[in-house]
Amino acid sequence: MTDQPTPAPAGIDHAVLAELTRLRESIDNIDAAVVHMLAERFKATQQVGRLKAEHRLPPADPERERRQIARLRELAVSANLDPVFAEKFLNFIIAEVIRHHEAIAGDSGRAEA
Amino acid sequence: MTDQPTPAPAGIDHAVLAELTRLRESIDNIDAAVVHMLAERFKATQQVGRLKAEHRLPPADPERERRQIARLRELAVSANLDPVFAEKFLNFIIAEVIRHHEAIAGDSGRAEA
Repeated sequence: MTDQPTPAPAGIDHAVLAELTRLRESIDNIDAAVVHMLAERFKATQQVGRLKAEHRLPPADPERERRQIARLRELAVSANLDPVFAEKFLNFIIAEVIRHHEAIAGDSGRAEA
Repeated sequence: MTDQPTPAPAGIDHAVLAELTRLRESIDNIDAAVVHMLAERFKATQQVGRLKAEHRLPPADPERERRQIARLRELAVSANLDPVFAEKFLNFIIAEVIRHHEAIAGDSGRAEA
């Protein structure tokens, strides 16, 4: 783990540096939390993929995806985040889920994210 | 909030449907958590941006960014996630941070993410 603080540029006021360090530590904590939550999320989508394959259900579910996007956009607004960003975020995750499914199954079909 | 369960395709076994619903609820919970963590993360990067502007520090810090990428890649490995994905994720977030800074300041420079 490379958790040493990033060295400060020369000549920064001590209080400013302390505040910058405080904020960076929060950002690093959040990033660690998000990476672990995404690991858990991919475990769930892999289980969904397996379940659907076993029971011959269609891999993609456009209605479920439409609801996911609408819900994330609403959550983003309530969290004071750009809803366009929330939708881009879900699409970014969906692209990774599809990549996982392709890597496992050798198929190139759309999968539930 | 659109939290009604997604209607099931006709003819799915009840136990399979229950398992699919359980997994989807976990995915939705994780997405809500991640959206709120990202909202908190953007609050922190906006404070960093403000602090740097006030104290005339350079907006970007390539050494800090290099360390962030290295750390996220290590965290990803420990969480059984693809480290390439973790790096793509950080780049996705960095693009959004830059978009925020551009929207606020009207500048197009690289900013700390």
